[in-house]
Amino acid sequence: MPEKVVAMGRAQGRDRIRPVMLAVAGDSASGKSTLCHGLMAVLGADRCLSVCVDDYHRHERSERAELSFTALHPDGNYLDIAEQHLQLLALGRPILKPVYDHATGTFSRAEYVEPPDFVIVHGLHPLHSKLMRACFDVTVYLDPSEDLRRSWKIDRDTAMRGYQREDVMAELARREPESEAFIRPQRRHADLVVRFAPDAGPQSMETDALSADILLRPTLQHPALDRILAEHRQAALQLRIIRDLDGTPTDCLHIREHAPGEETHRLMDAIWAGLGIDQEPPAELGLTGDGHRREPLAVTQLVVLQHLLHANTQHPPHDGGVLTGA
Amino acid sequence: MPEKVVAMGRAQGRDRIRPVMLAVAGDSASGKSTLCHGLMAVLGADRCLSVCVDDYHRHERSERAELSFTALHPDGNYLDIAEQHLQLLALGRPILKPVYDHATGTFSRAEYVEPPDFVIVHGLHPLHSKLMRACFDVTVYLDPSEDLRRSWKIDRDTAMRGYQREDVMAELARREPESEAFIRPQRRHADLVVRFAPDAGPQSMETDALSADILLRPTLQHPALDRILAEHRQAALQLRIIRDLDGTPTDCLHIREHAPGEETHRLMDAIWAGLGIDQEPPAELGLTGDGHRREPLAVTQLVVLQHLLHANTQHPPHDGGVLTGA
Repeated sequence: MPEKVVAMGRAQGRDRIRPVMLAVAGDSASGKSTLCHGLMAVLGADRCLSVCVDDYHRHERSERAELSFTALHPDGNYLDIAEQHLQLLALGRPILKPVYDHATGTFSRAEYVEPPDFVIVHGLHPLHSKLMRACFDVTVYLDPSEDLRRSWKIDRDTAMRGYQREDVMAELARREPESEAFIRPQRRHADLVVRFAPDAGPQSMETDALSADILLRPTLQHPALDRILAEHRQAALQLRIIRDLDGTPTDCLHIREHAPGEETHRLMDAIWAGLGIDQEPPAELGLTGDGHRREPLAVTQLVVLQHLLHANTQHPPHDGGVLTGA
Repeated sequence: MPEKVVAMGRAQGRDRIRPVMLAVAGDSASGKSTLCHGLMAVLGADRCLSVCVDDYHRHERSERAELSFTALHPDGNYLDIAEQHLQLLALGRPILKPVYDHATGTFSRAEYVEPPDFVIVHGLHPLHSKLMRACFDVTVYLDPSEDLRRSWKIDRDTAMRGYQREDVMAELARREPESEAFIRPQRRHADLVVRFAPDAGPQSMETDALSADILLRPTLQHPALDRILAEHRQAALQLRIIRDLDGTPTDCLHIREHAPGEETHRLMDAIWAGLGIDQEPPAELGLTGDGHRREPLAVTQLVVLQHLLHANTQHPPHDGGVLTGA
């Protein structure tokens, strides 16, 4: 009955306006929420929909206790439904989104949501399948050094989720095989791979100083950072060509926490100016949960942001009556 | 970004096996559940998925009390989500179906369901939109005489839902404008329109005897009932050409409760034999909630059933890689 597909396609009518779709993938406590929070603060909450892939858990917490795998395993999630919903959002259509309540570990009433200009999808599995990846305009994988991620996870889970340090350590060990099997393979499918790490260099004055390495893969057209950076001698900002894990030569922007203010500001001004926006880069960038501003985070967010804003100018209001069946 | 649609389409891979989709629309207490129950008993529960459009209510009962409209109003339902889900099921894909609990008037945890061979969609609005209608292979509208429907509704709501007769009468009056505006217009979009009515003719021996008029619209290829019925002189079964409400000449099969057993059996045997099935018509047909067998219901169910089974033989296992985006 191909005629039924045609009838459905015809009955769809004109296409909706499609949002710009961003994926932020990464393991637990890799910095996804902090990154997304700043982006949404700049874009405006009314122009953004935040979708957490954790809402597509298959089991409530009490059921999960019986299982031999963790929430990192694809079988612990309705990833096929997440796939559907990402497609629908990408096509500008509403969804009835499940809601997993982390406080109670149970599902609450589903939410009806319509995609505004930007849809920001974060979680453990947004780049899991080819079909999910096809839904996004910009994809980011957060790949902090494992020591840093562990310390972030211990800090967060003991401070905000009431766990003991030993419990978190045990959970990290239990999850490691599934992190390796199901989370880290998403790294190779991102346009941007961001590695935060302790900044242990000679200019570091705080013990928790950070650096960021942003891998700028050629799947997106990046700003001409080489020209921007060549104009001045840089102390703490570098654009280097490195070999990616598979050997591909790739641009990598290295930012140190203690880059002199004028260096990061000059870089950010130049990226921002490249969008044709005649004002200062937003002050909301770079803020962490405790309200501190971290330069490596600010630059990372600005790089993502400029891709989102660029993609937004590329979307025609209507693409015409393509057959979507969704 | 039409390329994103193409990428999604390509990532879909091969199409799923598609189920036969039946819609049973009608007002409250028009006999939808009774009709569907017999069909599912014959087809087998494991081959059927029953979807009630009431699950797509927008409000819980406590919220609805505040509203100026009833659950019959499209605004009281996520009909766009129901539309999506019908499309997905029609394309052989799973859905995460909301669940409205009539006992508590609240939403419970959503259910992950995959379409088996037959999907039976019943409720107030399954034929509401062009897109919903495009999803079905067979569509039925139940249009009992209004007196009969009122008496069914009063009986059911007082016996099974704990309401007082006066409450039900008041609710019927309150719903009437929305029945007229949103439920009854679906009548013109059905392949089969079934009107149960009291059988007040001379052969009627019980006060609650029924007749059924089944309008056989030319949107489906019906069995050649004229030839079947012409072979014997009929007392209580007639095929007449009537004018539909819009004036279109249409076949109408009239069945009276007290058709002699041999008449309805001969008709049912002939319809059943037309499917090439070499056995008796199923005994599960015609049973009402109280376990009585009603001949007009049995014939109605058999007419629907033969269309479902016929459609099932028409579905190729795979339709190839059409772009569905769902």
